[in-house]
Amino acid sequence: MSASLEQLKAPIRVELSEFEQRFAQSMKTRVPLLNTIMNYIVRRKGKQIRPIFVLYSAGLCGDIGERTYRGAALVELLHTATLVHDDVVDESYQRRGFFSVNALWKNKIAVLVGDYLLSRGLLLSIDAGDYDLLQISSRAVRDMSEGELMQLERSRFLDITEPVYFEIIRQKTASLIASCCAIGAASAGANKDLTDRFHAFGEKIGVAFQIRDDLFDFGDNDSGKPSGIDIKEKKLTLPLIHALKQVSPASAKEMLKLIKSKTPDKEKLARVTAFVNENNGMEYARSVMTQLKDEAFALLGNHASRNDLDMRALVDFVIDRKH
Amino acid sequence: MSASLEQLKAPIRVELSEFEQRFAQSMKTRVPLLNTIMNYIVRRKGKQIRPIFVLYSAGLCGDIGERTYRGAALVELLHTATLVHDDVVDESYQRRGFFSVNALWKNKIAVLVGDYLLSRGLLLSIDAGDYDLLQISSRAVRDMSEGELMQLERSRFLDITEPVYFEIIRQKTASLIASCCAIGAASAGANKDLTDRFHAFGEKIGVAFQIRDDLFDFGDNDSGKPSGIDIKEKKLTLPLIHALKQVSPASAKEMLKLIKSKTPDKEKLARVTAFVNENNGMEYARSVMTQLKDEAFALLGNHASRNDLDMRALVDFVIDRKH
Repeated sequence: MSASLEQLKAPIRVELSEFEQRFAQSMKTRVPLLNTIMNYIVRRKGKQIRPIFVLYSAGLCGDIGERTYRGAALVELLHTATLVHDDVVDESYQRRGFFSVNALWKNKIAVLVGDYLLSRGLLLSIDAGDYDLLQISSRAVRDMSEGELMQLERSRFLDITEPVYFEIIRQKTASLIASCCAIGAASAGANKDLTDRFHAFGEKIGVAFQIRDDLFDFGDNDSGKPSGIDIKEKKLTLPLIHALKQVSPASAKEMLKLIKSKTPDKEKLARVTAFVNENNGMEYARSVMTQLKDEAFALLGNHASRNDLDMRALVDFVIDRKH
Repeated sequence: MSASLEQLKAPIRVELSEFEQRFAQSMKTRVPLLNTIMNYIVRRKGKQIRPIFVLYSAGLCGDIGERTYRGAALVELLHTATLVHDDVVDESYQRRGFFSVNALWKNKIAVLVGDYLLSRGLLLSIDAGDYDLLQISSRAVRDMSEGELMQLERSRFLDITEPVYFEIIRQKTASLIASCCAIGAASAGANKDLTDRFHAFGEKIGVAFQIRDDLFDFGDNDSGKPSGIDIKEKKLTLPLIHALKQVSPASAKEMLKLIKSKTPDKEKLARVTAFVNENNGMEYARSVMTQLKDEAFALLGNHASRNDLDMRALVDFVIDRKH
């Protein structure tokens, strides 16, 4: 049984509120409409997984300080910017159980709000002259957009092999988690080698994090029901990619034909899910997650836990979550 | 009669092609779809006004060099990013006489392409450790999105006074032109004082540049016909703001009521244009442009021209253009 989010936050409660202050502060603007939207975003905060990774990584390498808070605010600003743009891109009208920015204020404003958040995030480190953090995070911004575009492109042709899948999720999801861990470590005085190890650790955990997300789609979640969004958008993810490799080329071709076809979503999803289960797609994806976790912790050495900060508990929460 | 764009480019032909190489190079990616889009954007290049301002400013302060080319590529990347996002925001399907990115590849991809261009631009200076240029340009990114949002907000209530109008266009348009001039100057070794003066110069010229754009809307252009896009979008610009101040509050209220009303666009535009002309809105806006130009050049002192580089010719081209 993994720790709850509340339990994980307990040892860094003071530090989280320091971060939250800076996060809210860095969104202030003279434009009233923008302030309204920023307040809306701040109030509907998410799980804060990324700032928590920053704070844990810092605490495991040294002392949490001003640079750490700034780094945490920076990654949360960049993450929020990508969420606002993602909702435009995906035409989603809900986010965290509330209306999305594009639903309430239209795409026009959502695109600009995303750009604004992106520039505020980067300015946070530029104005402080904190260029290491800036470089780490700008790379993540580039990787995230490149990864999303690669996925869109490949989905058009249903042409995603396992190496391509890993490259896509490394860019679109893992790059920011890797940045969180590296920024946290560097902010607490870790040297280059240790910072690089935290970066590599975060990348592996980030990949596992995305595989967890992909498993939801096939029913490995609270409701037990497959959500089927990826299938609908013709995104091939690990459980399905693995299953397709277990059968004859003719059978694989038939399955891809079904996914491309105009078969009603419900029937399509039932057949794809059955196919994935018959061919051990879910078990395989879970085994990859476990392997990534082991590889990741091998990198941290004796920096995996310290006093009440336990990185394993945080990672288990992230990887075992069901929603 | 102002110089043509070709004449203005002649003394910096070699330098412009150095810039173009770096611009194209910095867009390269491993994602084929993204490369296709980047090639499309590079081929349909615009007037390159912003890189030209960078090169002129550098040449007037010292020697044009590697930092100048990088700065020129950076501002053109940021400008292109905002154009791609603007076309999504404005639902425009044409850009420079060709289809826009969102028209050819949909909003989804256009939003991501804009983010990608933004991050590539910033990384260009980050990877080179060129933090002064980075700070100048990140501020411009923030100002541009903030300015656009301020304009959207105020347009909803038709509540734009002259000081608010100047603040909006300073942010949304002039901030990037100001950055171009400051980046050019700094890249050629200008000291802080001279760099700041080029920044202030660019800001005034950028405001004039936007007023020129706003005049097009009322018919001061090649075709002689008002385009009326601003009126349609309920954007109040300088000629109209001035005209509204010349009449009684009751008459101004009536005019605003007309703009808000569902009167057919053609009739509405004819009546608004007549109102602006009757109340000297166009002449006033043109006089403000002239005044800004004079103030701007007072800042440059003896840095306004050198050999065949004449900043006055460039500014006249920008301010006298009819399309």
